Amino acid sequence: MNPPEIDTQNRVTFRVNAPEAREVKVINLSDEMAMGAAEYSLTKGDDGIWWVRTNPCRPGYHYYQLSIDGFKGADPESQAYFGWGRWTSGLEVPSTEITFYQPKNNPKGDVIVHWYFSEITQAMRKCLVYTPPSYRTDITRKYPVLYLQHGAGESELGWTMQGKMNFILDNLLAEGKAKEMMIVMDNGYAASPDAENKARPSGDENLFEEVINNELIPEIDKNYRTIVSRESRAIAGLSMGAGQAMRIGLSHLELFSGIGVFSGGVRNFNKETSFSGVFKNVDKLNKDINLLWIGCGYLDRGFENIQQFHRELEDLGVNHVWHEMDGSHEWQVWRHHLYEFAQLVFK
Amino acid sequence: MNPPEIDTQNRVTFRVNAPEAREVKVINLSDEMAMGAAEYSLTKGDDGIWWVRTNPCRPGYHYYQLSIDGFKGADPESQAYFGWGRWTSGLEVPSTEITFYQPKNNPKGDVIVHWYFSEITQAMRKCLVYTPPSYRTDITRKYPVLYLQHGAGESELGWTMQGKMNFILDNLLAEGKAKEMMIVMDNGYAASPDAENKARPSGDENLFEEVINNELIPEIDKNYRTIVSRESRAIAGLSMGAGQAMRIGLSHLELFSGIGVFSGGVRNFNKETSFSGVFKNVDKLNKDINLLWIGCGYLDRGFENIQQFHRELEDLGVNHVWHEMDGSHEWQVWRHHLYEFAQLVFK
Repeated sequence: MNPPEIDTQNRVTFRVNAPEAREVKVINLSDEMAMGAAEYSLTKGDDGIWWVRTNPCRPGYHYYQLSIDGFKGADPESQAYFGWGRWTSGLEVPSTEITFYQPKNNPKGDVIVHWYFSEITQAMRKCLVYTPPSYRTDITRKYPVLYLQHGAGESELGWTMQGKMNFILDNLLAEGKAKEMMIVMDNGYAASPDAENKARPSGDENLFEEVINNELIPEIDKNYRTIVSRESRAIAGLSMGAGQAMRIGLSHLELFSGIGVFSGGVRNFNKETSFSGVFKNVDKLNKDINLLWIGCGYLDRGFENIQQFHRELEDLGVNHVWHEMDGSHEWQVWRHHLYEFAQLVFK
Repeated sequence: MNPPEIDTQNRVTFRVNAPEAREVKVINLSDEMAMGAAEYSLTKGDDGIWWVRTNPCRPGYHYYQLSIDGFKGADPESQAYFGWGRWTSGLEVPSTEITFYQPKNNPKGDVIVHWYFSEITQAMRKCLVYTPPSYRTDITRKYPVLYLQHGAGESELGWTMQGKMNFILDNLLAEGKAKEMMIVMDNGYAASPDAENKARPSGDENLFEEVINNELIPEIDKNYRTIVSRESRAIAGLSMGAGQAMRIGLSHLELFSGIGVFSGGVRNFNKETSFSGVFKNVDKLNKDINLLWIGCGYLDRGFENIQQFHRELEDLGVNHVWHEMDGSHEWQVWRHHLYEFAQLVFK
């Protein structure tokens, strides 16, 4: 791999070896500002290599792909990430100022790949489990658990590979800014045995809610030193995962006391009927929920919708934390969301 | 993803969406027999999708890539694996008979992603650590450790993703066929701080031997419940990793007592000078090494060379296990190698 070069102005030079192609493009899969344009056409250099230097890009992680005579695929010179339902290229534009998600020379937690057999889906599943640095040394201690979900077309790998969640937590813990916690990341798709679309089931064919409540939580509580109580269990997610966190969290307050909603989760909110009607009894809700955290970037197409939901919660008197920031529907925002949410949950 | 379809005769149908391309090929990156031909030219169907059905393929894991008007890249419809120095496509042709590497409904070990800072390379490194199913429940028990290395152009992910090492061990342990052990998989490339090629350093610029002996082993022994002794430490690897296992293992018998050499490791063997001359004193070597395991597939281009080495060891009276099997320089063979080696090591 000769990864794309990034200059001091965050302009990126892509090079593609496609000797017989007639048209080569870099397609930005995020918003235009992320990579300075929706797409770039490359030109063939004297050495036969197609190339382009982009406009300045925004710091953070951006999905992109190549187009070679209409074929859309990953850039062989880049790291591949699972997103958009396939292995896709990612561009990490570094920031000298924003370092909370960069690995530092401090104690490191582990990310454990944990396999289990799911009776509900009749399939092997795997989840990723973050344990904080003290987990291996302080061998009798028990920890609260955050269940943390990815977005549509991504997988259980997203929060570690794209999100750098382990470094975010390591850094927060090294500075004493968050409670020590475990974080469990499962795949938000759990196809029923007879589902047509096994990879991305939707509606009744996606049994994720049943799997997390009836299989995953017991599996984690059995195999790790967790504090088994609703006070020490939270659920959060981004985009599709935000919707899952809201739906599953609010309808299972016997299991969860913290809910994190990152850039998603609400459409056509109705205080009488949405989320099994839990917003009808605000006093009970405020007692049951220790933390309801809602965040979104200004440039997100769903921003106004989510902001409106936040205002309705304010009007209703529902305790919650609202977080808005520069950024769109992308991982740089979700890294910030986790960074903020993790400082408040379980406290 | 709509992964390639595999029929009952192991013929694989590839489909590629490349509307404006003039030439689309599937390139087999393994030997011809793995996928039935070195490459396949696709034809454009009435629906505009290029396609081909291959000759019967051999069961196992085969690297391949697409060629689109001369551009070589991964198949967006397939799982990507790190091999050939980049994210490359892999084809897993299932076998109904050979199931030792398939996940079964038995106790599962963990694969832990373990980060550490390396003073020698002045960089963060990550290794993968397999702990057997009992590790989490039997919390005072200590385990022997196998250090297991990938091949050239691969990474610390290879043995888990391509090799399915965790399922191989889970299955062996469930049947009582192997000693319970930890397996540590690091990246065999460890660039010196001033190396020109950071991703794939070679010669003096690759400090892997220094890293494993002086940083990795102490890191693992400090953080996990290992048995800290040469009798309970082994090193094995495939191809480039076989060479590393031989060189590092034989020149550090104070650290290792077991050595696994999978499809590589020997060129121009000279009993007087090779491997720091350890083969000059066969009696000492036979006392120091508990297991020297050497395997190769018949179809491997290096087969005769390695078989010749095995015969010289026989003539010298060096205790070792020799394993030959159908197969070439590919993961299906290395899965078998680990399966066999793991049943003998630490016994």
